[in-house]
Amino acid sequence: MTAPIRVAIAGYGNLGRGAQAAIKQSPDMQLVGVFSRRDPSSVTLIDASVPVYSMDDIEHYKNDIDVLILCGGSKSDLPEQGPYLASLFNIVDSFDTHANIPDYYAALDTPATQAGKVALLSVGWDPGLFSINRLYGEAILPAGETYTFWGKGLSQGHSDAVRRVAGVKSGVQYTLPSESAMARVRSGEQPQLTTREKHTRECFIVLEESADADTVREAIVTMPNYFADFDTSVNFIDQATFDAEHQSMPHGGFVIRSGVSGAEQANQVLEFSLKLGSNPGFTSSVLVAYARAAFKMNQNGEQGARTVLDVAPGLLSPKSPAQLRKELL
Amino acid sequence: MTAPIRVAIAGYGNLGRGAQAAIKQSPDMQLVGVFSRRDPSSVTLIDASVPVYSMDDIEHYKNDIDVLILCGGSKSDLPEQGPYLASLFNIVDSFDTHANIPDYYAALDTPATQAGKVALLSVGWDPGLFSINRLYGEAILPAGETYTFWGKGLSQGHSDAVRRVAGVKSGVQYTLPSESAMARVRSGEQPQLTTREKHTRECFIVLEESADADTVREAIVTMPNYFADFDTSVNFIDQATFDAEHQSMPHGGFVIRSGVSGAEQANQVLEFSLKLGSNPGFTSSVLVAYARAAFKMNQNGEQGARTVLDVAPGLLSPKSPAQLRKELL
Repeated sequence: MTAPIRVAIAGYGNLGRGAQAAIKQSPDMQLVGVFSRRDPSSVTLIDASVPVYSMDDIEHYKNDIDVLILCGGSKSDLPEQGPYLASLFNIVDSFDTHANIPDYYAALDTPATQAGKVALLSVGWDPGLFSINRLYGEAILPAGETYTFWGKGLSQGHSDAVRRVAGVKSGVQYTLPSESAMARVRSGEQPQLTTREKHTRECFIVLEESADADTVREAIVTMPNYFADFDTSVNFIDQATFDAEHQSMPHGGFVIRSGVSGAEQANQVLEFSLKLGSNPGFTSSVLVAYARAAFKMNQNGEQGARTVLDVAPGLLSPKSPAQLRKELL
Repeated sequence: MTAPIRVAIAGYGNLGRGAQAAIKQSPDMQLVGVFSRRDPSSVTLIDASVPVYSMDDIEHYKNDIDVLILCGGSKSDLPEQGPYLASLFNIVDSFDTHANIPDYYAALDTPATQAGKVALLSVGWDPGLFSINRLYGEAILPAGETYTFWGKGLSQGHSDAVRRVAGVKSGVQYTLPSESAMARVRSGEQPQLTTREKHTRECFIVLEESADADTVREAIVTMPNYFADFDTSVNFIDQATFDAEHQSMPHGGFVIRSGVSGAEQANQVLEFSLKLGSNPGFTSSVLVAYARAAFKMNQNGEQGARTVLDVAPGLLSPKSPAQLRKELL
């Protein structure tokens, strides 16, 4: 057996914890350390057998890490840390601000190329696995339409908006794909649908003692931008139910390509979907599989910025190409 | 704009016709010829603006073809033609005898490598897109189970068996995924299921005039190996309905990975499915997209046998990597 891939984690929130757990599921990998901007002694790992280091010292570990998984946020952490860390390590991150991906790609490409490393950005499920399926769909069925539906998923921004309504003690909002819109797409109809037509919204609310349910419901469903144009349902529950049933972070969605192949003008529908019990738990599992790929690509002589669209599927697996052909084809 | 990719087709049955139609949907490709073992003058193309040549002459076109799509069958055509054609051209084929893939891979690898060409085998949906999704599933969720369901699909072998029953004038058999088995898998339960437990069978039969429906039904549902152990429904229809509704070749299926990510022991379900109005129409569309990839891989210096697991998704698209990052990520 070859030596395990030496992996480290930068940033230890939900994603970092998930990455540590996913590495434990991967016998070909060894977690060599967690890096944090917090005081290392204040960071509590899910498995304390691994050392925690200060981010300030990370360059001293340049020769001890085969690939570094960046678990910071896309808003400020990654744009700041990514280019610097790409000059030291093979990196993989989950940068997910879709509109800024081309700029962020360019910001990683130069330092990674100069350092002879691979910087694999925007790994996760959207961007990530959903992007791959959008590509498979349009490349295989050029005459067609691609549809993305999100949900059932917890929306942080809409949950915050609900909680700002007077009379709301606790609240969450889930985005759901519209069943009727999905049925139309799956039928091969190729309808034109806006984001609003594709989704409904569902709120679970615990009221303050003095609050009036109808007033709160009205304030929510008429809220401009957030809810006014959506089909929104509001459910009132007690705090115990809220605590028991609405603390996890489910998400998921559907990418559907509906197209027509040439010879017989036959309808062909390709669908990819995810039903995730934990959004950060899944995203970190994707990051760990792509960390393996980033390391192998660099071993194969690649350098510079890459995305999931550049990664051959076989590189994600710990199995050899011959074993994959035998078992999976 | 760069020059179009010069594509040729070897073998002109359902797959060859589908490939010609799919190439017409691809502005970056140009079909330069169709090769057949039949007398070229007897081959009727769906679009006759392309020349038909004899397979015997194919080596004379060595410098005129960027990639050759092999549209023969896996049983005898491809094992015979593949290694020879891989010594002349970049090729792509849909070899689908799962158990023989490692041997066929080896038979293509040597001539392709010696010729400095890429031979991309076993392209289609199973093996093919389903294989890719089995790989994504197990690489991302190593703790879990993968399930493949087929259907709704026309089964040639079972349709033949039904037609051999005395009293059957016309007949087809469709394999359907079991809804109850799929529901258990989607719930995250990870049940152990045999192929039989995952599928049901549905027959549409036109009776001979003198035949007794109950006798025919009994003969079908008790037929050993084919139907006895399955939940089988038999529907009797008239010839006009049969001709109108049962002449196409639908197929499809589902690959589902049900796994548990580490940190929160959260259930995570990944599902890929196809609902195909025409099985050969879709398979040939996949072949054409991978023909583009085979050519690009060879342009990038690759040579030897490859499978879909070796192909980065971006290579399937006519768009540039920068355009793909902007539009699809």
